[in-house]
Amino acid sequence: MPDLAGNFFEDFSVGQKLHHSVPRTLTEGDAALYIALTGARQVLFSAAPVAHALGYPARPIDDLLAFHIAFGRTVQDISINAIANLGYADVKFHLPVYAGDTLTTQSSVIGVRETANRKSGIVYVHSAAFNQNHREVISWIRWVMLPKRDVSVAAPAPVVPSLPDYVAPEHLHVPDFITASGFETSITGSMRLWDDYQVGEKLDHPGGMTVDDSDHTLATKLYQNNARLHFDALAMKDTSFGKRLMYGGHVISVCRALSFEGLENALCIAAINAGTHANPSFGGDSLYASTEVLARWEIPGRTDIGALRLRLIGLKNLRPEALPAIRETHEGKAVYHPNVVLDLDYTVLIPRR
Amino acid sequence: MPDLAGNFFEDFSVGQKLHHSVPRTLTEGDAALYIALTGARQVLFSAAPVAHALGYPARPIDDLLAFHIAFGRTVQDISINAIANLGYADVKFHLPVYAGDTLTTQSSVIGVRETANRKSGIVYVHSAAFNQNHREVISWIRWVMLPKRDVSVAAPAPVVPSLPDYVAPEHLHVPDFITASGFETSITGSMRLWDDYQVGEKLDHPGGMTVDDSDHTLATKLYQNNARLHFDALAMKDTSFGKRLMYGGHVISVCRALSFEGLENALCIAAINAGTHANPSFGGDSLYASTEVLARWEIPGRTDIGALRLRLIGLKNLRPEALPAIRETHEGKAVYHPNVVLDLDYTVLIPRR
Amino acid sequence: MPDLAGNFFEDFSVGQKLHHSVPRTLTEGDAALYIALTGARQVLFSAAPVAHALGYPARPIDDLLAFHIAFGRTVQDISINAIANLGYADVKFHLPVYAGDTLTTQSSVIGVRETANRKSGIVYVHSAAFNQNHREVISWIRWVMLPKRDVSVAAPAPVVPSLPDYVAPEHLHVPDFITASGFETSITGSMRLWDDYQVGEKLDHPGGMTVDDSDHTLATKLYQNNARLHFDALAMKDTSFGKRLMYGGHVISVCRALSFEGLENALCIAAINAGTHANPSFGGDSLYASTEVLARWEIPGRTDIGALRLRLIGLKNLRPEALPAIRETHEGKAVYHPNVVLDLDYTVLIPRR
Repeated sequence: MPDLAGNFFEDFSVGQKLHHSVPRTLTEGDAALYIALTGARQVLFSAAPVAHALGYPARPIDDLLAFHIAFGRTVQDISINAIANLGYADVKFHLPVYAGDTLTTQSSVIGVRETANRKSGIVYVHSAAFNQNHREVISWIRWVMLPKRDVSVAAPAPVVPSLPDYVAPEHLHVPDFITASGFETSITGSMRLWDDYQVGEKLDHPGGMTVDDSDHTLATKLYQNNARLHFDALAMKDTSFGKRLMYGGHVISVCRALSFEGLENALCIAAINAGTHANPSFGGDSLYASTEVLARWEIPGRTDIGALRLRLIGLKNLRPEALPAIRETHEGKAVYHPNVVLDLDYTVLIPRR
Repeated sequence: MPDLAGNFFEDFSVGQKLHHSVPRTLTEGDAALYIALTGARQVLFSAAPVAHALGYPARPIDDLLAFHIAFGRTVQDISINAIANLGYADVKFHLPVYAGDTLTTQSSVIGVRETANRKSGIVYVHSAAFNQNHREVISWIRWVMLPKRDVSVAAPAPVVPSLPDYVAPEHLHVPDFITASGFETSITGSMRLWDDYQVGEKLDHPGGMTVDDSDHTLATKLYQNNARLHFDALAMKDTSFGKRLMYGGHVISVCRALSFEGLENALCIAAINAGTHANPSFGGDSLYASTEVLARWEIPGRTDIGALRLRLIGLKNLRPEALPAIRETHEGKAVYHPNVVLDLDYTVLIPRR
Repeated sequence: MPDLAGNFFEDFSVGQKLHHSVPRTLTEGDAALYIALTGARQVLFSAAPVAHALGYPARPIDDLLAFHIAFGRTVQDISINAIANLGYADVKFHLPVYAGDTLTTQSSVIGVRETANRKSGIVYVHSAAFNQNHREVISWIRWVMLPKRDVSVAAPAPVVPSLPDYVAPEHLHVPDFITASGFETSITGSMRLWDDYQVGEKLDHPGGMTVDDSDHTLATKLYQNNARLHFDALAMKDTSFGKRLMYGGHVISVCRALSFEGLENALCIAAINAGTHANPSFGGDSLYASTEVLARWEIPGRTDIGALRLRLIGLKNLRPEALPAIRETHEGKAVYHPNVVLDLDYTVLIPRR
């Protein structure tokens, strides 16, 4: 391995700002590729007239595609040397992104904490993506484990930010121009709207999708996420994985695409409350998904549209019906079942009756 | 396998209308991907100035790409549970589709017939795709074999529609704005026009194309065709195929792309008269194609452009020169040679001298 | 194998002109796919506002994508039967290509020379691509080895063109509208500009990229390069390669994309001085790259932008740090190390302090 560029644990300090490089213009080309890579059928992103009928000036770019591209900017500075991407929180989708928009991303370090073995540390980062008009479009917190460059150097005092358990309904951004009151369910093939989901309800999505190495590497290159563990099979041969690791964000995308069957009218993602890549995925894995409805929230001031807080479980090589439990006990500790690859707590906007 | 959504044989009755879900906007992104997925070089879809010179307002979307996307809408309602896609007939391309157009598809059931074993039945469906201006762009008939949900329930009286052997020249749609009289053959590299093809002539197309799993699954996801037998390798392991099946429509696309060498001036498809997926194709198969000229038709009222009715034979892992015969005798029955994957009777428009 | 179409050695004569078929409109779809296929992050092609700030009317198409598409036009006439693509010289990028532009390519034969064994010959061709306004956008010389159709026919007197060692700085095309004086290095994450590179300096680019069969065949189909040795695994099984060969141009693209880390501010390619595909690449190879700075040139009349002449070495399955030498001695002859796949001498434009 080469003398690696990129930052290590001690390169981060609380309050530090990072202006990430290489802005990216998104286009209809990205949107088409995203459909080809995920099979997504979410109507808001599939059909311009549907977007227009809802009040959008144009068909927006799939929110997860925009997120992955915004996120991709941060990899070189934040996670190129990461041992693990530990989690996401407080991910908010402020404004839609359209074909032609250009995204740039900035970050602030909001926490650092050395790990018990003193060889590595955890860095908490707040990131925000802006469009070409300097409007914030997506913001998020994530935390990663990074090796220390020099294990003998003392770490600074730990700072651990307090993270919200979830993005509260009053903090969800619902653009004023959206009007979902005339939403026609015939365009999605399902009559189930916000009113029809029950808290605690569980949906096993019927589809499954095998993801090959070309698929996930194409996706991750599209996002210009340059974390080399996704691309370099030769370098990965000597790791504990033994092969290229699938970008966890692409797992989210495939599972969200699979969730269309059962959540046909969930228009877009308003927030990701928390997310964990429970186990790694690799080329050749077949992905499946189930959803549990965690909460049904009204949006303040809106009667046409509501929010559903959902728990999306992604599985590899096992159908949701066959999963005994999301967690199991391993050596006295509750751990994720080895086939669970994703545990995502997120919030969608969906029309009301 | 999950409790499957989607329709079974007894869910269909003659006269039933289906409004398929999820309209789809096609873009330049789809067009670029289609070229990458097929290697298509058909000049009308490759070059905007060529389209303009022929009278088109813009470069149209490849007619098969538009067809696959229109067709993809119908899968959830019609063929998600299909045992077999038995055939196509009367496929007509009414109007070009352009980048920016949004397609929706509707269907009517025109026939139902229980099969001899009473466990399944054949459903005949007429489908039509419309653009955002409610203009019909493509229409087709197909018939599929579907399992019965409950084999003990009696089937309705059989209704088998009469299907035209082919779309007659007077029913081909040639937009009035097309003027092919000044068509320059230098742009395609072949001087062969309508006048130069002989009925009975056979063309073995020189190219070959190996299709990997990523290729055909990317294509089928692009079309938002969600038939799970194309995507879910794990579920397919326990079927007689043992692996993911290539979407037959993608086989048509690859063979049509290969047919460029020999049919360089065939501008677009006006009709598909009949089509059979003779044998299944899988990732790793190398596809080849040959064409037989079945008829050379004048188009009523036009001297600049004519029609060729063609039989396109698609082969896997065998060059057309090495095929002894399209059909062979197996246990006293004429069946397709095991390397024949496609037998497509279709009609192209091509400039005249 | 079929009775092959396409030209053989004796079909070429000095002075002959070839108007290559199938013009191609490039779009944002092609640009998105190119990023997905290479992971390119070169900022001029990634972000429209950056292009605008530099004076471009729009975000240009990646120069190598435009080159591959321009080049792809020539394959059917020049190299469909080639035994080897021996080299490139005098490749000049005259004008940017934008989404919406349509490229056509013309060639002139400038040299022919029978090889010593009299079974084949070398053909030297000058090619030029034009946009829809008949403006020359890219030109290049290449030479290929072609079999003779009939080895008994005498070859014409050899004509070997004199080729420039490199495109001199005064022949580089730098559009007048470009103004790099206000270039902000924060957008690329590197402060290294023209002034900061030293002749003789060597950069081992840290990234690596495994290229699967689907990746390189998708790319080559996107370029509409129909050389069948890239696509037809069955036909390739009986060759000395035994499998599909990766298009050498795609190797250039991947290596150029990898060179971003170290050459972040190299805006675009102005010329390719010489290029050799030193060894073949195949699906599954992991590619790496290193760059040596060969020269640092001022551009006549410009103080805002300069040129760097670079030697880009592409490697398969070996990191540049582990390469003992680019060439080694094999049976008394200096040959490329077997892991070297590309030796490219090219010139980039890069802002000055």
